[in-house]
Amino acid sequence: MSILIKNIELNKKIQDILIEGNTIARIGSSIDYNADIEIDGTNKALVPGLFNGHTHAAMSLMRGYADDMPLMPWLQEKIWPLEKNITEEDVYWGTKLACLEMIKTGTTLFIDMYHHAMASARATDEMGIRGMLTLAVLDFNDKEISEKFKKEIEQFHRAKTAFSNRLEIALGPHAIYTVSKEMLCWMKGYACANNIRIQTHLSETEIEVKDSISMFGCRPVNYLNSIGFLGPEISFAHSIYINDEEIKMLADNGCQVIHNPASNLKLASGTHFRYGDLKKAGITVGIGTDGACSGNNLDMYEAMKLASLNAKAAWNDPTLWNADETFAAATKTAEIITGFKTGTIDVGYLADIALIDLKKPEMTPNFNLISNLVYSANGSVVDTLICDGNIIMKNHHVDGEEEIISKANEIAHNLVARKK
Amino acid sequence: MSILIKNIELNKKIQDILIEGNTIARIGSSIDYNADIEIDGTNKALVPGLFNGHTHAAMSLMRGYADDMPLMPWLQEKIWPLEKNITEEDVYWGTKLACLEMIKTGTTLFIDMYHHAMASARATDEMGIRGMLTLAVLDFNDKEISEKFKKEIEQFHRAKTAFSNRLEIALGPHAIYTVSKEMLCWMKGYACANNIRIQTHLSETEIEVKDSISMFGCRPVNYLNSIGFLGPEISFAHSIYINDEEIKMLADNGCQVIHNPASNLKLASGTHFRYGDLKKAGITVGIGTDGACSGNNLDMYEAMKLASLNAKAAWNDPTLWNADETFAAATKTAEIITGFKTGTIDVGYLADIALIDLKKPEMTPNFNLISNLVYSANGSVVDTLICDGNIIMKNHHVDGEEEIISKANEIAHNLVARKK
Repeated sequence: MSILIKNIELNKKIQDILIEGNTIARIGSSIDYNADIEIDGTNKALVPGLFNGHTHAAMSLMRGYADDMPLMPWLQEKIWPLEKNITEEDVYWGTKLACLEMIKTGTTLFIDMYHHAMASARATDEMGIRGMLTLAVLDFNDKEISEKFKKEIEQFHRAKTAFSNRLEIALGPHAIYTVSKEMLCWMKGYACANNIRIQTHLSETEIEVKDSISMFGCRPVNYLNSIGFLGPEISFAHSIYINDEEIKMLADNGCQVIHNPASNLKLASGTHFRYGDLKKAGITVGIGTDGACSGNNLDMYEAMKLASLNAKAAWNDPTLWNADETFAAATKTAEIITGFKTGTIDVGYLADIALIDLKKPEMTPNFNLISNLVYSANGSVVDTLICDGNIIMKNHHVDGEEEIISKANEIAHNLVARKK
Repeated sequence: MSILIKNIELNKKIQDILIEGNTIARIGSSIDYNADIEIDGTNKALVPGLFNGHTHAAMSLMRGYADDMPLMPWLQEKIWPLEKNITEEDVYWGTKLACLEMIKTGTTLFIDMYHHAMASARATDEMGIRGMLTLAVLDFNDKEISEKFKKEIEQFHRAKTAFSNRLEIALGPHAIYTVSKEMLCWMKGYACANNIRIQTHLSETEIEVKDSISMFGCRPVNYLNSIGFLGPEISFAHSIYINDEEIKMLADNGCQVIHNPASNLKLASGTHFRYGDLKKAGITVGIGTDGACSGNNLDMYEAMKLASLNAKAAWNDPTLWNADETFAAATKTAEIITGFKTGTIDVGYLADIALIDLKKPEMTPNFNLISNLVYSANGSVVDTLICDGNIIMKNHHVDGEEEIISKANEIAHNLVARKK
């Protein structure tokens, strides 16, 4: 299939863009081509679909279920009791809801970590979005649980062939305090042997660092380095509490970091994400929303603004993490962090793109598109979304959205009812 | 005119609500009334229109014109040179654009401070929104300028009768470092004599406090107290750098404070707005967006989230400024801060209300409406907006919005062109 978009703002010029199959085929000032679909880009701008670098999609079912609580009671009294009963069907509908929200706010690729990952994969595949999906692994130093997870991982990895190329399977050890050293090493070995990637939580809270020192005799990154875990296939979510030595280790090993501003602020995990130092060290920094029960939404436009504003304020420097860098963190970095050839509008890249409606008050005046997108817009400015060469949203409407919303609401209320 | 809204979620129940004239006349489980307009509230929720406690509406013309800069070069090289040439027509269209953005994001009342306030008033009146408008006064200790401003204030105040009751005139001395003591005292006297209100900037930056100590021998609130300026008719914008003694003075005098999180974060003015201490002292705290060239939008839903998240993170307390308190700061406080009987859904209150579309992914599941509104939503969830008993937005569309966007874009580019 081919799509020709005419007269759209791209890199400050009015251009045409031709998509053939799932790829950007041509960009030019006046493309003459008899495409299957032609879209009028007048009063619109073309940008990459955004990349949500860290989330737990199905937790959208728990949005607004427990807020304004300290981390541990929130987890122990509210979230974990719900998750104990969560079924494949719950995860399926929770992920459908999450994908719908991401599509409606202009995201075409996300990294997920959750239970029942087969259900997440099925939902993501159906929604037409791109995903790098991981099964959340927590073995709590229990050998029996580790063995069970090893089988599930192999099974999930083998199932990849059942899904489209939009899906990539990766590994998701939850964190150093929930996964045994033996299991971490097994997962590292599995990832290297199969050329797949890893994402894990790292140094989200100060307590995590203190616990690492008392449990392993060193800080989290030193621990992971000592067991040979670090490498360019690994992205770390959060990573607020890392010192200079740890930043150097991450840089030397080509690791990437995903900042999750909404979650870190709301749970009071910390404000001093070391963006400037990570940038200086040459580390690729992406942005994520985290799950919707901490975040509380999956709107990457909002996440960009929060990332930039929080960095400026925390480090007392209004020039820090400027609009262009912030937008790049939510687009371009996808290629390095996930391996998908996406996040850039250029010939040969995957056709993962958004058409922005410029006729919105928050996009007016249009002095600087990227500045407007990062600091003024939210996801509702996205009019049309194309992923893998397919139109998955048009006129801000997604086919079947009403059913997903109704069903997810019902599933979420049933999940809570089962807890009682 | 009368409007009957049927079967809408209000205070966790499905209810009907009747508006007669500009007032909420009845709320009940099943109202039988032959109203001029009947609205089906199925799958919608009813909340007050939001109150934007501090903005410079016409600065929407400068959105995205200069970002990622330190405060002083930003003002001196970018903003002030533009403002030097700003005309009545510019302010009129800039305010129209701002009102459009506020309407589309569910705000029914704002406090404004800007130049050419007659043009702001004309634009606000036409847009159907409610405004407490002030002429920005900066005399830089120049007697001639003060005298000019006194005449302009009197003229602006007299012109009130030309506008609808939705408009209130107040006084807007810019700040203690731009307005002479003599002029501050005159304005305080004028406000008391005419029973009108005052809003001014206070302690937005640390430098302001240092300058106050070197200029007046004391901190800003002490200075204002020493000249008899404080009182319940005054709201202070920003007010980040205030100590315990100053908080007590503000409380003792019944002053109110408006927090502007987006602007404070983006310009790196400060993160430690003392919400908890202000609350303890019994001070009414509102929320504002500030102008769109610092903020960079006028979406009060986003401002609520930023206020709450920043407070939690800055003070390391995830329970601080919870969703209900945040929503109240952006609604209920309007009555105390502006005197308009608005911000509450109850019989006898002004019919300034929003209908929220619940069939949105970011509003799903609906465990806690207020939590979803504060932490997950942005202004695009507002489907219908009623101000003063008139429907000013329906199906998220405002009459004439296309023309305002086109014209404001043109006006903004002309303003910049004139500078060159």
